[in-house]
Amino acid sequence: MGIAADLLDGKIGAGARAITWLDDGDPRGAEVIKRIFPHTGRAHVIGITGPPGAGKSTLTDIIVAELRAREQRVGVVAIDPSSPFTGGAILGDRVRMARHTLDPGVFIRSIGTRGSAGGLSRSTHDACLVLDAMGFDAVIVETVGVGQDEIDVVNLAHTTIIVGVPGLGDEVQAVKAGILEAGEIFVVNKADREGYPATQRQFELMLHLREQSRPDETWRPPLLRAVANAGEGAVEIVDAIAAHRAHLDESGGFAQRSGLREREQVLALLRERLAREAIAHAGDSILAEVEARKLDPYSAIEKLTGQG
Amino acid sequence: MGIAADLLDGKIGAGARAITWLDDGDPRGAEVIKRIFPHTGRAHVIGITGPPGAGKSTLTDIIVAELRAREQRVGVVAIDPSSPFTGGAILGDRVRMARHTLDPGVFIRSIGTRGSAGGLSRSTHDACLVLDAMGFDAVIVETVGVGQDEIDVVNLAHTTIIVGVPGLGDEVQAVKAGILEAGEIFVVNKADREGYPATQRQFELMLHLREQSRPDETWRPPLLRAVANAGEGAVEIVDAIAAHRAHLDESGGFAQRSGLREREQVLALLRERLAREAIAHAGDSILAEVEARKLDPYSAIEKLTGQG
Repeated sequence: MGIAADLLDGKIGAGARAITWLDDGDPRGAEVIKRIFPHTGRAHVIGITGPPGAGKSTLTDIIVAELRAREQRVGVVAIDPSSPFTGGAILGDRVRMARHTLDPGVFIRSIGTRGSAGGLSRSTHDACLVLDAMGFDAVIVETVGVGQDEIDVVNLAHTTIIVGVPGLGDEVQAVKAGILEAGEIFVVNKADREGYPATQRQFELMLHLREQSRPDETWRPPLLRAVANAGEGAVEIVDAIAAHRAHLDESGGFAQRSGLREREQVLALLRERLAREAIAHAGDSILAEVEARKLDPYSAIEKLTGQG
Repeated sequence: MGIAADLLDGKIGAGARAITWLDDGDPRGAEVIKRIFPHTGRAHVIGITGPPGAGKSTLTDIIVAELRAREQRVGVVAIDPSSPFTGGAILGDRVRMARHTLDPGVFIRSIGTRGSAGGLSRSTHDACLVLDAMGFDAVIVETVGVGQDEIDVVNLAHTTIIVGVPGLGDEVQAVKAGILEAGEIFVVNKADREGYPATQRQFELMLHLREQSRPDETWRPPLLRAVANAGEGAVEIVDAIAAHRAHLDESGGFAQRSGLREREQVLALLRERLAREAIAHAGDSILAEVEARKLDPYSAIEKLTGQG
């Protein structure tokens, strides 16, 4: 399979094609993964998440530049919400990343959120494996928004960066708090804005509560400041990423997280596959009954799984 | 089964217990659904979504008050992100709804996002069925944030309200645009804020694009303004909800959406159930191999589903 070999040689076109196949559920994608898998497990997967408006794209941009300055090759998987007529708006947002597009040491790829039901995590993880096999040292996964999807996605990372921003209301802080558990590095971006000290204090408080609730945790998440659109903060963030990587290597956490990620991938694939098959075998008439509301979902499941 | 009868009598305690069982995957929950299902299909399910900070809770509060003024009984399913130490912050946000807690015509229930993998949609839909059976005329599903989860959840509604707010950046508008397809009513909240005209124009443009891309659509989504914390806008929103309900009744869309929701529920249940069973039967050693990265996920799936 030439594409697997090309991909392992770091050829961009081969990587792009493999990711498209995997996104589309084309069986050739699975074949590629099987061939490249023994060559993966080396890339450092870094998740970046936070509320809309926190400046995640700009922050990703300066982190990429700093990693490049340290001679690391960087892949970026940007998660875009899917909409037939707004794709352009999102892509426009990526224009800021344009300065990296001529750099062969950087590869940027967008993944749509269409498909759902665990599909986002699965596609993202597949893309990370491909970039890993292509020899990128770091793979950054940048999400939009903050929701369960984002939590699932960042749970797949070795290191997760949670981005906050001054001046958002209590509700936002609460939403952010929901993913606080997942983060290893915290960054308050747009730190030149009014309201920065209050936001900083909120994060400090949350991190303090987290420490108290986990006395055995050996990694203490740093709280950093950034002004991404002025290029400020990248050095400290990349230092923290390197420190967390060293911590993971020492504790055995790096291989452990990689393994758990593969495990989650199997479960996601299994859910997709089995549901598709059960419906294909016996489901159509049962589903029609449910759609007509003549049969309740729980009774339908018993029929579909032969436990009626 | 006394609890099903109590629930159909509208007893709050019975409803709360059934929802807890369903959340926990307790088999008694499924038994309750089977019994009450023939008595459901009447409640108007209304989804409310939008970015963090858009004031969705306050807006929900004034919509509930207006529906009550029109003598409708209202259930609210509030989706809260789950975090062991921030539950309080979120609940605090619900304090605004406190004025309704002594009103027997209102029942508010929070659903956690823990569990994931389609579990949020499933739990939310189960809760809607329970509130429907209890005789609530309207069931409002209020989400946090904007992500695929939110899209899944609002896709379950008969009528979806998308809430925007002035002064958020382009990224937020883009995120909002991702769920624009799902909405039937658009509200710009906090319309007394600076930046309202620009946000209003953005929404108008997006709605115009949507109309052009769907020439056959018979419902034209209204764009409304609200200042929820001053109580402004509720009358117009509830009028629009009623107008959309009338449109659904005329077009047959009400029953159709209810049916599709049940269908989605079956697929979600099926994915959960089958994956659990496949792992229970044959999965442990295979999963261990995957976790040790000795086996790739796609080969693991072939072994688990007997297609190796």
